[in-house]
Amino acid sequence: MKERGLLIVLSGPSGVGKGTVRKEIFSQKDTNLYYSISMTTRKPREGEVDGIDYFFKSREEFEDLIERRKLLEWAEYVGNYYGTPIDYVEESLQSGKDVMLEIEVQGALQVREAFPEGLFIFLAPPSLSELKNRIQTRGTETEELINNRMTVAKEELEMMDAYDYVVENDKVELACERIKAIVVAEHCKRERVANRYKQMLEVE
Amino acid sequence: MKERGLLIVLSGPSGVGKGTVRKEIFSQKDTNLYYSISMTTRKPREGEVDGIDYFFKSREEFEDLIERRKLLEWAEYVGNYYGTPIDYVEESLQSGKDVMLEIEVQGALQVREAFPEGLFIFLAPPSLSELKNRIQTRGTETEELINNRMTVAKEELEMMDAYDYVVENDKVELACERIKAIVVAEHCKRERVANRYKQMLEVE
Repeated sequence: MKERGLLIVLSGPSGVGKGTVRKEIFSQKDTNLYYSISMTTRKPREGEVDGIDYFFKSREEFEDLIERRKLLEWAEYVGNYYGTPIDYVEESLQSGKDVMLEIEVQGALQVREAFPEGLFIFLAPPSLSELKNRIQTRGTETEELINNRMTVAKEELEMMDAYDYVVENDKVELACERIKAIVVAEHCKRERVANRYKQMLEVE
Repeated sequence: MKERGLLIVLSGPSGVGKGTVRKEIFSQKDTNLYYSISMTTRKPREGEVDGIDYFFKSREEFEDLIERRKLLEWAEYVGNYYGTPIDYVEESLQSGKDVMLEIEVQGALQVREAFPEGLFIFLAPPSLSELKNRIQTRGTETEELINNRMTVAKEELEMMDAYDYVVENDKVELACERIKAIVVAEHCKRERVANRYKQMLEVE
């Protein structure tokens, strides 16, 4: 009877500020989301706590989880594994909680295959507004700078194709507000509400 | 070059509180929407101002607008015409403004035909939560009361079929927040943002 929670995948190009935005969202008191902590084989950095920043595992443990298909997505960067344990996500969704992942673009594409019903949010750098400014103030900018921006914008445009929403990270607070608005709006989608009505009516 | 605004149609069963919710939204300072004032042939009530509450017109003027297809939707209730002038809506959307209509269910269906790309929001009474409570506290409620609620919920379920979103009007402030969240989320939809990128890139 319990309605399944939403899976929210926050992703975007590296360096865009995914971690900062995610931390800001979870530092806000009115946030009603659950964060799925990633797993890694890299050593904890100073101040990082097991079970809060990451689940720190050995390579053997991680590879065992890969084999047993216990990871929703995983990748190897610079000799270390990073991934998302599937059990926490699945249990949370089943109990009606909304779960957020914050992962790289490659991982998001893997999750999309397993959870096509997820909410895929692309965090974009403020390159579009910047580009607009540069074009509008043409003459004060070199053609080279404008062309560089154009190239970056084209690459972003291609990446965002697999996503449902694009949130510009012009200001961290604004980006957080938009992400939370997206979650509220998704809960109001007619199909979801209609399903709640139908479930209630079938109780009879 | 200017991106077209969103047309937001707030509707729902009569008596649900559409007017109250709409007034609350437009009384909030951070609201960035434009309200499309309706037109009517009924006499102004005490305190009502032409051009604020309604555009008050004669039957001849109204019928002339119907003939010239200058109304986005219209209907006759208890001997009076009510409708939405199309020019204000079209001009506002073209200049990039988000426009909100607050109209009856029949009118919303007419608008859906002319503007299928609009955002159709169904304001629902808190009957679902009520129904749930009544079922859960069964024994303290008569079967008749529960059955009445079931019938109402079924009718609502049918009505909401033509809408994109359903917002429960449990509390006016919450309903307003949800409606504003929906507008923010829609502006972050990938297709819309991707179109902005494409337009910028084609400037070259």
